Amino acid sequence: MTDHAQRTDEDIARLEQMLREDTELAPGGARRISELLGTIALKDLIHVLERMPSVRAALILRLLPRQRSIVAFEALDAAHQADLVDALGDDSLTSFFDALDPDDRVSLLDELPAEIAERLMRSLDESEHGLTSVILGYPKGSIGRHMSPEVPMVRVELTAAQALEALKEQNDRVETVYTVPVVTADRKLVGVTSLRRLLMAGGEEGVDTLMDTPVYAHTGDPDEETARWFRALDLLALPVVDDSTRLVGMVSIDDAVDIIEDADNEDSARSGGSEPLQRPYLTTPVWKLVRSRIVWLGVLAVSALLTVSVLDAFEDALAAAVVLSLFIPLITGTGGNTGNQAATTVTRSLALGDVRKRDALAVMWRETRVGLILGTLLGALFGVLLGIFYGASIGIVLGLTLFVVCTLAATVGGIMPIIAKVVGADPAVFSNPFITTFVDAAGLVIYFLIAKTVLGI
Amino acid sequence: MTDHAQRTDEDIARLEQMLREDTELAPGGARRISELLGTIALKDLIHVLERMPSVRAALILRLLPRQRSIVAFEALDAAHQADLVDALGDDSLTSFFDALDPDDRVSLLDELPAEIAERLMRSLDESEHGLTSVILGYPKGSIGRHMSPEVPMVRVELTAAQALEALKEQNDRVETVYTVPVVTADRKLVGVTSLRRLLMAGGEEGVDTLMDTPVYAHTGDPDEETARWFRALDLLALPVVDDSTRLVGMVSIDDAVDIIEDADNEDSARSGGSEPLQRPYLTTPVWKLVRSRIVWLGVLAVSALLTVSVLDAFEDALAAAVVLSLFIPLITGTGGNTGNQAATTVTRSLALGDVRKRDALAVMWRETRVGLILGTLLGALFGVLLGIFYGASIGIVLGLTLFVVCTLAATVGGIMPIIAKVVGADPAVFSNPFITTFVDAAGLVIYFLIAKTVLGI
Repeated sequence: MTDHAQRTDEDIARLEQMLREDTELAPGGARRISELLGTIALKDLIHVLERMPSVRAALILRLLPRQRSIVAFEALDAAHQADLVDALGDDSLTSFFDALDPDDRVSLLDELPAEIAERLMRSLDESEHGLTSVILGYPKGSIGRHMSPEVPMVRVELTAAQALEALKEQNDRVETVYTVPVVTADRKLVGVTSLRRLLMAGGEEGVDTLMDTPVYAHTGDPDEETARWFRALDLLALPVVDDSTRLVGMVSIDDAVDIIEDADNEDSARSGGSEPLQRPYLTTPVWKLVRSRIVWLGVLAVSALLTVSVLDAFEDALAAAVVLSLFIPLITGTGGNTGNQAATTVTRSLALGDVRKRDALAVMWRETRVGLILGTLLGALFGVLLGIFYGASIGIVLGLTLFVVCTLAATVGGIMPIIAKVVGADPAVFSNPFITTFVDAAGLVIYFLIAKTVLGI
Repeated sequence: MTDHAQRTDEDIARLEQMLREDTELAPGGARRISELLGTIALKDLIHVLERMPSVRAALILRLLPRQRSIVAFEALDAAHQADLVDALGDDSLTSFFDALDPDDRVSLLDELPAEIAERLMRSLDESEHGLTSVILGYPKGSIGRHMSPEVPMVRVELTAAQALEALKEQNDRVETVYTVPVVTADRKLVGVTSLRRLLMAGGEEGVDTLMDTPVYAHTGDPDEETARWFRALDLLALPVVDDSTRLVGMVSIDDAVDIIEDADNEDSARSGGSEPLQRPYLTTPVWKLVRSRIVWLGVLAVSALLTVSVLDAFEDALAAAVVLSLFIPLITGTGGNTGNQAATTVTRSLALGDVRKRDALAVMWRETRVGLILGTLLGALFGVLLGIFYGASIGIVLGLTLFVVCTLAATVGGIMPIIAKVVGADPAVFSNPFITTFVDAAGLVIYFLIAKTVLGI
């Protein structure tokens, strides 16, 4: 893909190297580099920026032609944009900020210290300031925060021809014109049509005959859930209304894609037991990586002390049969894996809306059955296998333990994410990392109880 | 959100219940239900279908008005569509299949047994059959397989007015008209314009003055990587060309969203140690859930035997100091968590394109530093903590072990996904589940070597 001469991954790597090494970006070098940057594809330019240290990236942005630098800046994540703020200098910063759509401005403001945020807000002209304040007014996590308040709209009583004229007048003001809300005199949303339909119909046909019953969201609707509707319904944009169904804004599909990708990044990070970085990995300072992991790691390690005390309680059994300790990692590992499989599946289904809170019992029942089957298969396999090498009684102990642990782990792993959702926690955090800890401790108790019974120690 | 009277989650739950229970869907009931289904929002209808057993979902589809049933069927995942095929009956099936876009048809065919696939292909008229065969010709995983071969296009020598006329003529044939490729007489792509620009310019202005240098993909480009360009570049559609840059198709953003979501589903499932379901959780038969997990679970459990043999080798040390066994889960757990944190972060960065193969060393170096810091912090914390409760020497052993294990785990966890990518495996599978096993075994070896030295056993 390219919007200029095709560049190979290697070309880009070389350019990147050059940009890193050109320590001065001396006048001569600067000109050469800005020419070079002017000739590469936008996507390659963005890729390079995402891999540069903030100061260097800011320098490069300032070397670019204004329009191109604005487009490039817009393409970066809000947190990454915030990293560049200090190095950008007021002129470029305010011009970038001014060029952003109101909803993207708000995302950036959320990442900035109050005083900088206020300074930037003051730099806006009155109308832009007003639009941005509106968006800032909606709570985080609501779709209102991601909408563009500058929407195209046509009155329901117009003809297709008149509607097209109206859209041409609105053209400079609005972000998109392809999905066209149809409204009454008092701005109530009564339908949705599209530039395509208006254009193809043309002439005297009435807008009211060219519109569908509107698909819309309320400003307070949850952003991720709303964004995921775009896929099922193949929407390009979604009108947003207030409590009296007055049109107040529109969410475009690129906003929806941003919301979904951010949500998926967060789930991915948290299910791995860390906090999302919100910026490209290679440009994230090491201390930020540490910060994103240390808390969970510490919490999990401390809660792992639970397993220490469990084993402490069974020290006599361990002393009596040291062989039992050989299988501790096998049991905790298998239990953890079974629990994580269930938790990951259910967490994802919750995110996609396939599973709702009210499905708790259905999910639990399915996972219990899955656990029973998995437990039977693994229990039989390892019961026989370890029975051969360590004697029948050990085989029985391990077989039974794995059977019980798998069933328990799958059930708990399936229900945990839903419990998390009910108590308002993030299923992705609450489930995977914690299940391991819980299943480890519970599994060991089960293991030693079975062992003491079977081995009679 | 609604395209009819607003429905609460509860209303939908009730309707769903009714549809499950109405065992006969008797003529009277059928009419009542189809009326009811006609009045709920499309997104609610799709949600209900996604939660129904296949046979029931197929029945419901056949009760819907033709157009609505087609839209609903199109909204389902290909694998889910395939589940319905048997229950649908030939008439509805062929009409659904005929209504799909060529690329969606191909996705469905990929999920079907050969003979059914062939029968469906034969049911298409010549032109549709031709278009579908073209898509089928491109390898899986290539963007060519997701493109629509019916693209709008305008000749570069036209005026805006002529271009609009040309688009009106193409309207019935093409999927989208908003992004408009500009081509030469021999169909070479020379630019991209948009319906918006043509309309707003209008009149005698030349298309060549209204177009940008084209952003395009080649038919063979990898689908996920290509799909992710849409976000950075805010694209609505992307022209696809052959090796001689002739325009052969276009990928629309809803295709891109499908590709990204499927890729994220797959990564999410695999990082949790299971295979993606490709269909809504609640409608997936239990045996399919088991099948999606048993293989990985088995592989991981068998590889966990490695830890058994490690412990077996150190049985003497364990016998000499049973207390050592108390900390086995703490060490394996912490190592596993540290490794998974690194692996998850890097896997995601690979998926997003932030990290490339060539970054292997940079990633490794960052993760080693992160691991050293995390290891120092945890090692100090637990060295002191356990030193207090179990004596200084145990404290020293645990502190040192955690320090080494964290450093190792982070380094391995960071590099594993890249190795996976280099050898052509899926980073998500290769990393998280396997790291646990590796780190468990390695961590235990380190633990006992340190213990033997410090405790002199």
